Amino acid sequence: MTPSLVANGGVAAGEAVAVPVTGRVAAVYSEVQSSRIDHALPLPSVLTKPFKVVDGPASSAAGNPDEIAKLFPNVFGQPSALLVPSDSDSALPQQKLKIGVVLSGGQAPGGHNVISGIFDYLQDRAKGSTLYGFRGGPAGIMKSKYVELNSEYIYPYRNQGGFDMICSGRDKIETPEQFKQAEETAVKLDLDGLVVIGGDDSNTNACLLAENFRGKNLKTRVIGCPKTIDGDLKCKEVPTSFGFDTACKIYAEMIGNVMIDARSTGKYYHFVRLMGRAASHITLECALQTHPNITIIGEEVAAKKQTLKNVTDYIVNIVLKRADLGYNYGVILIPEGLIDFIPEVQNLIAELNEILAHDVVDEGGLWKNKLTSQSLQLFDFLPEAIQEQLMLERDPHGNVQVAKIETEKMLIQMVETDLEKRRQEGSYNGQFKGQSHFFGYEGRCGLPTNFDSTYCYALGYGAGALLHSGKTGVISSVGNLAAPVEEWTVGGTALTSLMDVERRHGKFKPVIKKAMVELEGAPFKKFASLRNDWAINNRYISPGPIQFHGPASNALSHTLLLELGVQA
Amino acid sequence: MTPSLVANGGVAAGEAVAVPVTGRVAAVYSEVQSSRIDHALPLPSVLTKPFKVVDGPASSAAGNPDEIAKLFPNVFGQPSALLVPSDSDSALPQQKLKIGVVLSGGQAPGGHNVISGIFDYLQDRAKGSTLYGFRGGPAGIMKSKYVELNSEYIYPYRNQGGFDMICSGRDKIETPEQFKQAEETAVKLDLDGLVVIGGDDSNTNACLLAENFRGKNLKTRVIGCPKTIDGDLKCKEVPTSFGFDTACKIYAEMIGNVMIDARSTGKYYHFVRLMGRAASHITLECALQTHPNITIIGEEVAAKKQTLKNVTDYIVNIVLKRADLGYNYGVILIPEGLIDFIPEVQNLIAELNEILAHDVVDEGGLWKNKLTSQSLQLFDFLPEAIQEQLMLERDPHGNVQVAKIETEKMLIQMVETDLEKRRQEGSYNGQFKGQSHFFGYEGRCGLPTNFDSTYCYALGYGAGALLHSGKTGVISSVGNLAAPVEEWTVGGTALTSLMDVERRHGKFKPVIKKAMVELEGAPFKKFASLRNDWAINNRYISPGPIQFHGPASNALSHTLLLELGVQA
Repeated sequence: MTPSLVANGGVAAGEAVAVPVTGRVAAVYSEVQSSRIDHALPLPSVLTKPFKVVDGPASSAAGNPDEIAKLFPNVFGQPSALLVPSDSDSALPQQKLKIGVVLSGGQAPGGHNVISGIFDYLQDRAKGSTLYGFRGGPAGIMKSKYVELNSEYIYPYRNQGGFDMICSGRDKIETPEQFKQAEETAVKLDLDGLVVIGGDDSNTNACLLAENFRGKNLKTRVIGCPKTIDGDLKCKEVPTSFGFDTACKIYAEMIGNVMIDARSTGKYYHFVRLMGRAASHITLECALQTHPNITIIGEEVAAKKQTLKNVTDYIVNIVLKRADLGYNYGVILIPEGLIDFIPEVQNLIAELNEILAHDVVDEGGLWKNKLTSQSLQLFDFLPEAIQEQLMLERDPHGNVQVAKIETEKMLIQMVETDLEKRRQEGSYNGQFKGQSHFFGYEGRCGLPTNFDSTYCYALGYGAGALLHSGKTGVISSVGNLAAPVEEWTVGGTALTSLMDVERRHGKFKPVIKKAMVELEGAPFKKFASLRNDWAINNRYISPGPIQFHGPASNALSHTLLLELGVQA
Repeated sequence: MTPSLVANGGVAAGEAVAVPVTGRVAAVYSEVQSSRIDHALPLPSVLTKPFKVVDGPASSAAGNPDEIAKLFPNVFGQPSALLVPSDSDSALPQQKLKIGVVLSGGQAPGGHNVISGIFDYLQDRAKGSTLYGFRGGPAGIMKSKYVELNSEYIYPYRNQGGFDMICSGRDKIETPEQFKQAEETAVKLDLDGLVVIGGDDSNTNACLLAENFRGKNLKTRVIGCPKTIDGDLKCKEVPTSFGFDTACKIYAEMIGNVMIDARSTGKYYHFVRLMGRAASHITLECALQTHPNITIIGEEVAAKKQTLKNVTDYIVNIVLKRADLGYNYGVILIPEGLIDFIPEVQNLIAELNEILAHDVVDEGGLWKNKLTSQSLQLFDFLPEAIQEQLMLERDPHGNVQVAKIETEKMLIQMVETDLEKRRQEGSYNGQFKGQSHFFGYEGRCGLPTNFDSTYCYALGYGAGALLHSGKTGVISSVGNLAAPVEEWTVGGTALTSLMDVERRHGKFKPVIKKAMVELEGAPFKKFASLRNDWAINNRYISPGPIQFHGPASNALSHTLLLELGVQA
């Protein structure tokens, strides 16, 4: 199928375009998709010439370094590695490499480019090397399910969204048998290295693999890459996780559209729930991009120990003020994980999990007597539909599925009820109509922005360089991101330096701490300094669709620029 | 606020850009929004030079011409008007004009450009003319609420989404008193003309106004413009309504993203409900752009007199076939109005409306005995949550709010129940997890595509030309849309020629018949010829975000190209 070109402007939207495809199952491409395949990606200049690796000082851990040292005797304390220009590549081993790569966890735009980056590194610097893609996430390592990636296989996925080149999975390599399986695969494929593309858990797992392989004297080195649209895997050396930029811009496009609709119609309050269960970075970034009237940041709710009633009151008060000004419309952003941040809700859910696990829930409601009075009060305060969701929606372990709770609808009902009471009392005579939205899956597999495309390519290319240089147990780190791409820095950061321990079932477990929204950080402070203005005055910004050429096509996220101190 | 430019690529996403604004309340613009303001719009060449109006043969009506002729004695039978090049504009009156414009009904991307087009026509061809914008829809005409539009006022809205320049409203001018009010405003402002930008109802209303003004010997002429994202206002001379192109591309972007996610994850069936209550054009267009596994077209359901069970069975059968092939994922498109198309559901709702209006609904369910057996059977077949929605969600007239029913969730539950039964019977052992989406408000106020921007500008500019030429009771008609813009045709079509009558409360009411999806039309036939392939094989296409430059930035909708016979 080729595009039917009809004079000027006669090409159909989403017209199929022929693309040479071997790997992608039955792939048919839109014009925009296919135009992205050959989009040339700039590389940081250190990656375009001979380089060598310079080590920094020994590292420690994010917390409890003694425990982390005990858990990772072979890789703890490694220095950060930085690539710097060199006269020649002679320090690098002149050998063909066998490298594996795996995608772990949820989709994030740019994953395919990390793989392209690794592949191109090997082509450019270690000719004759082999790259294996493990299929379906870490399970592919354990079950030795893989595909050999060549340039024809990779080509149609360049700069494309999704993880469908080799797919992903949520399994973890945890038990001694599972580590054994991973070792067997590493030995069988004679792997020099493995790149794990994933979030905080997956990178913790990558480090455990690195430790295990080294402990067993296997040559297989392990490098992590920071992936998550949620933006909660980051540190000084890893300024952002990939996918965050694209996902936020997709959500911000939709929010901006809804804002213009709200202003044009003048009669709806749009409650928009956004992905990000553990941290509210997406919500904060979208707020900075679009200037909604109300934004709830989970970390602030938790820090201030707010109740659901406090959150409702905050919303209601702004609705009242706006009604006085004649605005019976607005846009409200809510992080998916909001209720996880509210202590009283966590208590209620913990109690419900206990009751549902051990007791009979009678129709008459006698079971409710088992709730503490605070939880009972909260339960009765909740809209009926939410009560039902709490009781009925369970995960396979019988626990309440908090992620399934439609927080945006819950808040609409609670605000509605409160306003109705005020109307009866004569203190409110505005109009309130809520519209609920959840922007989630739409953002995980979009075409990566120019930033994510380039950043991921550098992460992958850099991961290749780190493996080639003999590094293990480090995460690919690309920095100086506010500068032109040529000036970006490339290196690796010891994964153990990001770790702390948590006590689970009486044992210390290493964890990479999720990076939460810092209430003292520049992004939150900027938001906090502006939100009262946004609440009352309508400062809506509509970012429009992601552009690959022209205006804003190279814009960075506010979060990144503010954290880098580049934007005031 | 100016963008903080930081070297290469250091501009923040959604950064505010200063725009000279007088009209737009507290307007702050993203970089993409502000880049669109000065986007130069091409005009059909007939509008760039002197022109004259050539009349075609007398027109009739879409149905019951005798009744339409009786209802519109002053404007019935008017010929179509076509603008053709002329040696000079001397045929046009050399006078300043006073023109009003009004936005009527729901938002559609491009409305601001219709207004810019009218304004620029007046500036270019009738210098010194005045353009009034009626605020808040037809109510603005009746209450004489208006603003004088000048170039500073209009400037920031050029090529922008939304209707917020003068806002819209859903009032109609219907009663004798309301027509009187409209006359008074027309006389008070000494209006030579009025442009009504709206859908089928609003254009019917425009024609009634034209008839009334002419009947009263007022000089005020009335021109309609075809607006609706639903795409159901069109005819031979009006190939498409504006906004359809942009809205479908926004929805298709999201659907394409969800498709890549479905394929990457391999574990979700995404049920996507799309706007379009009366007609399924949006759903069909999005299907042609993205190739989902299953698409339900309301008109086909109605034509085949399908039941809800038939629709469920159709979905279940494809899910079963896909499970056999190892695909436990998919994407399903559903038009918002689906249940309106199902006769048995219409019956049930009619019966419920009766019962709820006149009877007591008892907890015990005795009221159900008042349902016919077919309706009772259907009611019991519905998931509980939907039963509750049917009973509880009422509009101000006490009627069931069909639009509030989350059809996508209803279908997920029904498919789930059916598959569970089959699992028990041993005929299904796949996995089924539904994810629901509603793409609606996001599409009504996006930045208009290049097509909608240009088309709307031509519609508005053409409306100015029609008024200037003395036309009334016609709808602005821009054709030959598959050709380069220069070759587009410009004219007007008698609104009465689009009309038929409906009998309401014993009286004939004129109506512009909604253009439904034609099962014998090229778009549906193309879809029907491919859907079995799409169902089983995964032919997903991800159109990506709307681009304003480069690839696909001038693509037309499949529906339009197929209806024009340009695409096979």
